[in-house]
Amino acid sequence: MPTELFTVHTPPDAWRRFREHFHPAVRAERIATADALGRVLAESVTAPGDLPEFQRSTVDGYAVNAADTYGASPGLPAFVTVVGEVPMGQAAALTIGVGEAALVHTGGMIPPGADAVVMIEHTQRVDAANIEVMQPVSPGQSVIQIGEDVRRGDVVLSAGRRLRAQDLGGLLALGVTTVHVAAPPRVGIVSTGDEVVPPDQPVQPGQVRDINSYTLAALATHAGATPVRYGIIPDNRQALAGAAARAHAECDLVIFSAGSSVSYRDMTAEVIAELGAPGVLVHGVSVKPGKPTILAVCAGKPVFGLPGNPVSAMVIFDLFITPTIAALLGETLTARPRVQARLARNIASDTGREDYVQVRLEEREGELWAVPVLGKSNLIYTLIHADGSLQVPLDSNGIRAGAWVTVTLF
Amino acid sequence: MPTELFTVHTPPDAWRRFREHFHPAVRAERIATADALGRVLAESVTAPGDLPEFQRSTVDGYAVNAADTYGASPGLPAFVTVVGEVPMGQAAALTIGVGEAALVHTGGMIPPGADAVVMIEHTQRVDAANIEVMQPVSPGQSVIQIGEDVRRGDVVLSAGRRLRAQDLGGLLALGVTTVHVAAPPRVGIVSTGDEVVPPDQPVQPGQVRDINSYTLAALATHAGATPVRYGIIPDNRQALAGAAARAHAECDLVIFSAGSSVSYRDMTAEVIAELGAPGVLVHGVSVKPGKPTILAVCAGKPVFGLPGNPVSAMVIFDLFITPTIAALLGETLTARPRVQARLARNIASDTGREDYVQVRLEEREGELWAVPVLGKSNLIYTLIHADGSLQVPLDSNGIRAGAWVTVTLF
Repeated sequence: MPTELFTVHTPPDAWRRFREHFHPAVRAERIATADALGRVLAESVTAPGDLPEFQRSTVDGYAVNAADTYGASPGLPAFVTVVGEVPMGQAAALTIGVGEAALVHTGGMIPPGADAVVMIEHTQRVDAANIEVMQPVSPGQSVIQIGEDVRRGDVVLSAGRRLRAQDLGGLLALGVTTVHVAAPPRVGIVSTGDEVVPPDQPVQPGQVRDINSYTLAALATHAGATPVRYGIIPDNRQALAGAAARAHAECDLVIFSAGSSVSYRDMTAEVIAELGAPGVLVHGVSVKPGKPTILAVCAGKPVFGLPGNPVSAMVIFDLFITPTIAALLGETLTARPRVQARLARNIASDTGREDYVQVRLEEREGELWAVPVLGKSNLIYTLIHADGSLQVPLDSNGIRAGAWVTVTLF
Repeated sequence: MPTELFTVHTPPDAWRRFREHFHPAVRAERIATADALGRVLAESVTAPGDLPEFQRSTVDGYAVNAADTYGASPGLPAFVTVVGEVPMGQAAALTIGVGEAALVHTGGMIPPGADAVVMIEHTQRVDAANIEVMQPVSPGQSVIQIGEDVRRGDVVLSAGRRLRAQDLGGLLALGVTTVHVAAPPRVGIVSTGDEVVPPDQPVQPGQVRDINSYTLAALATHAGATPVRYGIIPDNRQALAGAAARAHAECDLVIFSAGSSVSYRDMTAEVIAELGAPGVLVHGVSVKPGKPTILAVCAGKPVFGLPGNPVSAMVIFDLFITPTIAALLGETLTARPRVQARLARNIASDTGREDYVQVRLEEREGELWAVPVLGKSNLIYTLIHADGSLQVPLDSNGIRAGAWVTVTLF
């Protein structure tokens, strides 16, 4: 069917139609925790033990019975006998009785019998064996209790979480040295267009260099997938069908970066339809830029046809492919960072269409302003000059200059 | 000198003292643009040509002389003769005269003589050779001009920029297939502490697993550096000095993750002092958590001594090591993403000290709230439950519940 006659769906409706037929399965693998930065947990992790496993001091000082220090003051200090020291990295070999204390270091073990630590600054040495305590301590003071950080059996990190630096630390602290994470889905990228040439070749009049397959590959990498580029396929039905079949067989998700003309888009839709049932689910989304978008599921695998121009391709990637990769990773997507800013000039839009406007952020007299980056959506450099984008909702016919808007950062 | 007697510096003062002696040199390397996602440009890139290099159509339609369409309407269409088609990827072989048009595709070349494109929807075919134009177009309409995206000689991306997906696309669009980027600085990480054991070993009472060297390595990776772990060095002056000398010789930046007790910290300071002039510049920063921090420059290389507890180590990494790695990369650091939220409970602080409080973000009835994650700074899981942190400024003695605060996201 000719592109201009297709039924356009709103983005939420398009996503719903697609999602009905897309049933992602996470492929998991086990790797070393130390190598898992940025990977997505495929299974929740339960604490195999308490953390800490023994009572630890949070200060350098003397482990005591808190009761021995009650009422102590610089004028009337409590007098205690030092019975030894707990060396770092060793179990406390001594027991603290009434009127006794042991020297402990920050992080060291609290000896049995003691229930609090007096900071060294609040003590004074009397002689080789005795000290004065100038301030009272309460039971538990300057002590980390067993399991205070984490209790054995607690779920410490849930499946779907993308691991951060501190998460690796938390897992290793518990002795969890390997984790079950989602394998990166393979994202096949097929470029079409007789006008498209590889970036390392000189361009002749009428030709343009391939931008999208590299930009899309980088976006896929950023989302946690492994991109596989299938080259630039000429405007030839058989060649395109061959590349499509190969990408569909080898990858978990296939993206067609269509040539920009109607005939390429129609050919792409036909080729996608042949990759398997149910095939094309959405052809045309009420998004600007990005209207001529195809969402399909073919024999269980998600397949997308993206508009040829780079700004549209990126808008659609964020809108549909990022959440699809997250689903293949089992990732619980957290909202992208957003900032509030004031709009620097009027933006017009049509009701019934979501507009995405690239903006540059500028601070003016302490206020953040969102300055729309002007330019046709065919211009790659609008993306490069932008810090993020803002959405003009479906039911809006525009936003006035000066209004507060939410900018989603790239 | 004993730790408790050192002169404490405010964070800005500490950074100033350190920066006076730290003169970073960027080590550059040339790599393929396609592989440069996340890398930092070591040289600004200038456009080697115009983009686009020829006039392109932004729509499917007919290239015409705009003047031929003036006054056209559905009731009184303009009549033009179609003299041919411009195939995609080819130079336009025909010239458009008065009263003539050529079929062009989106992204295709505008033939000489034409100055605008009428969208196909606004035309009607009369016979094999002629069409009617129902709407006037103005000169330049639906045409991207030569150099409209980028002009030859423009600086398209500046040195110091961390490359994003769309930046790679922009470079490749210009045929810039290799780029000069900063080589990742090598960050040596030396852990000390008799109580610290490798994460894959069972812990005995009094021992803890190494967390910091892995968390710090992941933070270094995230910042764009290559971490090199030098293992866990026992509380032995000679062993520590040996590891320090090796790390200092092999790396561009050295971090000591000190054992938590005063004696380890003092020993670390002494060992750092011997690595070269000027040595220790700051020993003690008015930050909570993170006070017992060492900033040093030894024979031209930055060296840091971090507190042993994981929360402090991460606060100090963000405060001093992230900008140091950025300096070694020549990176223009952009502000970390921040959000505004309301504080869920009172936070007390002391004037003259910067406090960093880990918070979890919660949406309550459409408003974002920052909920402080309670827990001693020795607890790694406070970091894991937190989405970001907020700063209580030097001159503040706290923040009241309900106040709007700025949360810097992790």
